[in-house]
Amino acid sequence: MSEIRKDYVTDTWVVISEERAKRPKDFIRTHLKIQNGTCVFCSGNEKQTPPEIYAFREAGTQTDTPGWWIRTIPNKFPALRIEGSVEKHSNSIFSSMSGIGCHEVIIESPEHDKPLALLPVSQVKEVLEMYKYRLSDLSRDRRFKYTIVFENHGAEAGASLEHPHSQLIATPMIPVQVASELRGADNYYTDMGGECIYDAIINAEQNEGKRVVFQNSSFVCITPYASKYPYEMMILPRRHMPSFTSISEAEIPELADILRRSLNALYNILDDPPYNFYIHTAPVNGRDHVFYHWHLEITPRVSKVAGFERGTGFYINTLSPESAAIQLSGQTADSKQSTVDSHASTAGTNLRFPEET
Amino acid sequence: MSEIRKDYVTDTWVVISEERAKRPKDFIRTHLKIQNGTCVFCSGNEKQTPPEIYAFREAGTQTDTPGWWIRTIPNKFPALRIEGSVEKHSNSIFSSMSGIGCHEVIIESPEHDKPLALLPVSQVKEVLEMYKYRLSDLSRDRRFKYTIVFENHGAEAGASLEHPHSQLIATPMIPVQVASELRGADNYYTDMGGECIYDAIINAEQNEGKRVVFQNSSFVCITPYASKYPYEMMILPRRHMPSFTSISEAEIPELADILRRSLNALYNILDDPPYNFYIHTAPVNGRDHVFYHWHLEITPRVSKVAGFERGTGFYINTLSPESAAIQLSGQTADSKQSTVDSHASTAGTNLRFPEET
Repeated sequence: MSEIRKDYVTDTWVVISEERAKRPKDFIRTHLKIQNGTCVFCSGNEKQTPPEIYAFREAGTQTDTPGWWIRTIPNKFPALRIEGSVEKHSNSIFSSMSGIGCHEVIIESPEHDKPLALLPVSQVKEVLEMYKYRLSDLSRDRRFKYTIVFENHGAEAGASLEHPHSQLIATPMIPVQVASELRGADNYYTDMGGECIYDAIINAEQNEGKRVVFQNSSFVCITPYASKYPYEMMILPRRHMPSFTSISEAEIPELADILRRSLNALYNILDDPPYNFYIHTAPVNGRDHVFYHWHLEITPRVSKVAGFERGTGFYINTLSPESAAIQLSGQTADSKQSTVDSHASTAGTNLRFPEET
Repeated sequence: MSEIRKDYVTDTWVVISEERAKRPKDFIRTHLKIQNGTCVFCSGNEKQTPPEIYAFREAGTQTDTPGWWIRTIPNKFPALRIEGSVEKHSNSIFSSMSGIGCHEVIIESPEHDKPLALLPVSQVKEVLEMYKYRLSDLSRDRRFKYTIVFENHGAEAGASLEHPHSQLIATPMIPVQVASELRGADNYYTDMGGECIYDAIINAEQNEGKRVVFQNSSFVCITPYASKYPYEMMILPRRHMPSFTSISEAEIPELADILRRSLNALYNILDDPPYNFYIHTAPVNGRDHVFYHWHLEITPRVSKVAGFERGTGFYINTLSPESAAIQLSGQTADSKQSTVDSHASTAGTNLRFPEET
């Protein structure tokens, strides 16, 4: 018997329709290969990308040359452009604004074949430090209302290059999906006299226990109660913080640990599946969002989104989050892959961001 | 320079980012083939499906045997089940209801290789008559709050069988995407003293002219101003009707004509692309929705939905609806395919539905 579940925060409903116990191999499919010639993100090809915005690189090496281990560049084909002011046009039917924003690419490693799931935790930590630095920097541009970091891994997830990278887009308005989370969280906060709904989710999920995949001292990873997709995961900080940019130096390695374990579990049980992840954080340059609590969502692409989902926003998920949690947590993070921590000893403690130098 | 556009009715925004004039061949990709053995939807294999609910069939032929030309059956793997009552459970974090609903399949033709885009208009007309009959029938079940008809064409669009078919799902609540359209239409209606926003869209688009693809005496097909996807189309009835089930006998052939032309244009210029379409109609068994206006949306699957779209609900479309309209309307409906109208002379006028017999 299927069950219809409501998302914790928004009015989105999901049919959990698990006719039989599904195993990971029911979801493994042949991947579409991304066909490219020379990889412009590989070390040695720095001149083929737009000039770098910032990189973590060995002392003494030059901008746009090898020696980096994480590198941020402008997207060569940006969806939104940095130049200009936000001009709005509107009548009752047609509303538009100029396509002002920002679109950056964060190359996560000089190595072409090493996805985040297999990188050393120390490298994942520095990727997250780069996120924090770039998000903090862009939030100072008053034209922007929202900033999002996301990763497309695999062709089916929308990646056009195989080399591991994430992207950052800043937009001049708050996107609809974020707006609906903000509304839900705000309503709950008001109704409950100042309680955060995400704090309540963490408490309720830890009490139930059935959907907790991983946890450490600062973070919890769950398969959400109303997961839209098989193996969907959500990582929440235990500490209440509206914005990702408030993450502390002590919390970043903890996030790296849990993110790496989550992606590694997916990699191992689903044979390196395509996935997206993104960070939902509070909007920038607007009102206070004390009721919000940033989090990271991971959505594997192992099932098709069909006409019903497109037409309704109502999802059918053939794997219960309870089954997914058992499968995902049954994996130890490094059960199949060894990790070599190439930068941990030198790089981790010596990061300098432009505003600190 | 890209432009950010707002959906006519909801708070959804789209980046229209057309860096260069794109041609149809930029969007044509290799299709994933649907691998099946014997097709259970083909004529002769009726015993391999659940017993038929209703079929248009030749006089004297038996249920669940050949002789039909359109056949409705229960979905063998239903997302929602017809038996039982709707039971709700809720606390502040976890809300659910029993998976009650209905899931039917409408087989559009006995022929395996003839998609809707190539069927005779008279057959398309009868498919639409079947939609009307099944939607009317299901709307009498008081447990249901919404009914949607949709089609998944091609593996990338979520089809698991190649044989042309559409599906119908009835749900015990109003899905989030429909709810947000209803809210937008209701607000406009209230603000404008009883004007329908969809009537306003038809007027504004006909005045602008740039996004009108096809029209006839009862319907208009446009590429929406804030199209999320390349070649997205929307078919609207000129007559204000909240519910699809109010479509008149005179309007059904007109809808068949414009739907067939729209799908045929896609078929011809994009080499039979995967697509979804669905009908957005007023909810059933609830309050009056005088402010709403049913319509049909066609969304081709020629681009990837990536992490940015998943995380924000904000879409990036690399083909402007103005370019899409030029390309789509440049096709005559039957420029490449001949159509044989096998049932037009006999079947069209002799349909009898159960409640009429």
